[in-house]
Amino acid sequence: MIKSIKESPLYRIANARSMAFFGASNNIASMGTHLLMTVLAGGFKGKIYPVHRKENRVQNLKAYVHVADLPEAPDLAVIVLPTSVVNQALEDCGRKGIKQAVVVSGGFKEVGDQGAELEGALKEIAALYDMKILGPNCLGVANPHRNINTTFVPNEGTPGFVGLSSQSGSFVTQMFEYLSGFGLGFSTAFSVGNEAVLDIVDCMEYLGKCPHTKVIALYIEGIRRGRAFMEAARAIVPHKPIVAYYVGGSKAGKAAGLSHTGAMAGPDELYDGMFRQTGIIRAGSVEEMFDFCWVLGALPTPEGNRVVIQTHSGGPGAAAADACGRAGLALSTLSQETLEKLGPFVPSTGSVGNPVDLTFTKDYHSFFSNIPQILLAEENADILMVYLMSPQSVVERVLKGMGVSDEVVLEQGRIIYESNAEQFSQHLKRQQKPIVGYTFHRPGAQIMNEVIKRGVPVFQGAERAARATAALVAYAKVLNRET
Amino acid sequence: MIKSIKESPLYRIANARSMAFFGASNNIASMGTHLLMTVLAGGFKGKIYPVHRKENRVQNLKAYVHVADLPEAPDLAVIVLPTSVVNQALEDCGRKGIKQAVVVSGGFKEVGDQGAELEGALKEIAALYDMKILGPNCLGVANPHRNINTTFVPNEGTPGFVGLSSQSGSFVTQMFEYLSGFGLGFSTAFSVGNEAVLDIVDCMEYLGKCPHTKVIALYIEGIRRGRAFMEAARAIVPHKPIVAYYVGGSKAGKAAGLSHTGAMAGPDELYDGMFRQTGIIRAGSVEEMFDFCWVLGALPTPEGNRVVIQTHSGGPGAAAADACGRAGLALSTLSQETLEKLGPFVPSTGSVGNPVDLTFTKDYHSFFSNIPQILLAEENADILMVYLMSPQSVVERVLKGMGVSDEVVLEQGRIIYESNAEQFSQHLKRQQKPIVGYTFHRPGAQIMNEVIKRGVPVFQGAERAARATAALVAYAKVLNRET
Repeated sequence: MIKSIKESPLYRIANARSMAFFGASNNIASMGTHLLMTVLAGGFKGKIYPVHRKENRVQNLKAYVHVADLPEAPDLAVIVLPTSVVNQALEDCGRKGIKQAVVVSGGFKEVGDQGAELEGALKEIAALYDMKILGPNCLGVANPHRNINTTFVPNEGTPGFVGLSSQSGSFVTQMFEYLSGFGLGFSTAFSVGNEAVLDIVDCMEYLGKCPHTKVIALYIEGIRRGRAFMEAARAIVPHKPIVAYYVGGSKAGKAAGLSHTGAMAGPDELYDGMFRQTGIIRAGSVEEMFDFCWVLGALPTPEGNRVVIQTHSGGPGAAAADACGRAGLALSTLSQETLEKLGPFVPSTGSVGNPVDLTFTKDYHSFFSNIPQILLAEENADILMVYLMSPQSVVERVLKGMGVSDEVVLEQGRIIYESNAEQFSQHLKRQQKPIVGYTFHRPGAQIMNEVIKRGVPVFQGAERAARATAALVAYAKVLNRET
Repeated sequence: MIKSIKESPLYRIANARSMAFFGASNNIASMGTHLLMTVLAGGFKGKIYPVHRKENRVQNLKAYVHVADLPEAPDLAVIVLPTSVVNQALEDCGRKGIKQAVVVSGGFKEVGDQGAELEGALKEIAALYDMKILGPNCLGVANPHRNINTTFVPNEGTPGFVGLSSQSGSFVTQMFEYLSGFGLGFSTAFSVGNEAVLDIVDCMEYLGKCPHTKVIALYIEGIRRGRAFMEAARAIVPHKPIVAYYVGGSKAGKAAGLSHTGAMAGPDELYDGMFRQTGIIRAGSVEEMFDFCWVLGALPTPEGNRVVIQTHSGGPGAAAADACGRAGLALSTLSQETLEKLGPFVPSTGSVGNPVDLTFTKDYHSFFSNIPQILLAEENADILMVYLMSPQSVVERVLKGMGVSDEVVLEQGRIIYESNAEQFSQHLKRQQKPIVGYTFHRPGAQIMNEVIKRGVPVFQGAERAARATAALVAYAKVLNRET
């Protein structure tokens, strides 16, 4: 177990100050070129040394015929070469004194016996030169806090709090856009590939010590070092939640994982047991993994599992109640005091049970301020779940009807949404109770964006909101078990 | 059972040629005004007669002091008045000879004994004048094929093939935006409210005969006429799939539904039995209900449950295999013939198992044309599931790298996406096998839009894609059982 982040073998990979680049050229069709272009587009501040046999300049950078010619031994070598020449390049890096490498090239253990032999040789080189290698058959690392991104996809999002250690590179690159749609981003994300030298456990330990990481996500096809994994998880979970999606449990997932990274999947029960014993929260899909990360990273842990639902209309309230029931959450019984306080704010056609149903109230101030305040003070409720609905077309129509000109309607709308969201989030800050939103608005709807920006997760549909809330409750239980 | 759509008591509600409007005014803060504005904004072609005690004109339409003054008995009365005066207005409509009404006003059975009494009186008026009433406590009807929308939210989407009969008005209005995000839309959607006269079964029968409706969605809090429901479902299912989300099965959902529309929910097993016996496909949430409608309305039914997965990269392939396994789908074993045909198209780092993994191929033509063609011809596969990934930023970078100017990059990108999607959809048309896409792109990503536009459903994440595919397989089984 590492004691500080600087002890991690991944430290100078995720925080490289300079890079040698193998396999990038001026040919836009090559994968290596794309990776280098991503590094450049990401605004990496350090020196980059492309190594190329023929070109003098690669992507407007001075290129070197041989790594031995470099003026220094850079922190990291990024290697995107044909399989057959990878080991030679690593050997050269070792001689130069480069201590860290990301090997993107595939064609190793995952393709069969011949590849496995090459991978064996790669490990020998790593041992000989004490070289920390991520991969092969990986996409490396994205650390937006340091403008580092060795993948081929530019990171659209802002630096965030989700740490990822993944046995699939796609769940790094494809998630840049996906997460930024929710206003989320990676703290640091690792694609571990075949794990010839560094593995998912090393990355998890790094993320455990990473100050930007509030929650750790693991995409697992198979764990090689079971004991080390459990030891690391046990040390991290009391301070930082871990969410895992294990794909190898089903027969189909197992077979697919094997051909992907050559990982050996174990029986589902084995993994389920490991997760339960260490307090790792298990997700049933990639989407769910990041949903869980969202609430776990953004919200305080609740005291219990009692939810109060606030809604504009009956159907979404009933659907949320049903989803909470299925997810193992309880609905709070509201106290007499709360019912009395709510009275003046609920129209005669509304309902002061739980869900609290405001039936299409047009009093947005109460909806975003008075009512959440009352419900968060309810001693029988641990969590507030709120249905967010504010059709832009209707808001714009009201403004136009009030004589507001077309030009200022959008601006006025924004001000309304901002002020609603601001009132709402004030309660989150004051109370140590989690607020979870759900909606059927499209991602990107103004009211959602404004609320999300202020730290309240908003899910599409009650089912996802309830499942994520249940994950938050599960983590709270793990923490209580620890003490 | 009705024999044609014109026999339905809902026909002149969903296809009204003229309306009397009660409760709309020139006050933008009133709900009735919003409903009328939505009707107008929707481009309703028929005559509208606002009834208002004081105003001469309402929203630029000639208004009438009393419904008796109208120059004709319009097809439909839309009533958005205070609860206490609703029955008087209905009585007046009856005397005028109006045979259809939508009562939006709430405050009836759902609020307790006094409201139940008012609702009893409403039913008597309906019986006396042989008046077909939708509601009370509902949002009426949206039939975009006839520019009819009596709800307070404008319908952003285009007319579509999903018919909805819903015990929640929100699942009409909130779904306009939601469905249009997937390129979907309603054929006709009914909000049934308290079902004093017309109920969810009547609406289901209407949709069964509606030529625009390819699939029927039911949001159910409680069925009052169990036998009629089953009879209608049995008659419809062999010709048109029905998907139901029943919210009343859990204790929490049941309590919430009761306060919403006064519906009496029954035990979950009872409903589950009804659904199974009649061949209705059951969904676990509103989102899932519309996911199921998408595949059922857009795709041919498969011969069996054997899926072949085509992917760019290992992780999404493994996640799809896992999701298929959990959803009860099987993975095809590819025949020798298929493996041989695939050979030339799969890079050495790829995998020709199932999932078929093209590992970041840049050969988009094969990905969208040759490979799907080969996989659809595989006799061991009933369904093709494809991972769609085409980061816009990378495509734009390639184009810029090829010397394309910034201005034409977007246009060129669109052409590429269009041609890929076009090739892809040609296979769907030629083969009678369903193709289901999944992605982690945000809704609205170009490649998704182009593919969706051509009739291939694309889901966010493998889990939703697999669950929807399983619903398609379940419907195919129902059809086989029938014959």
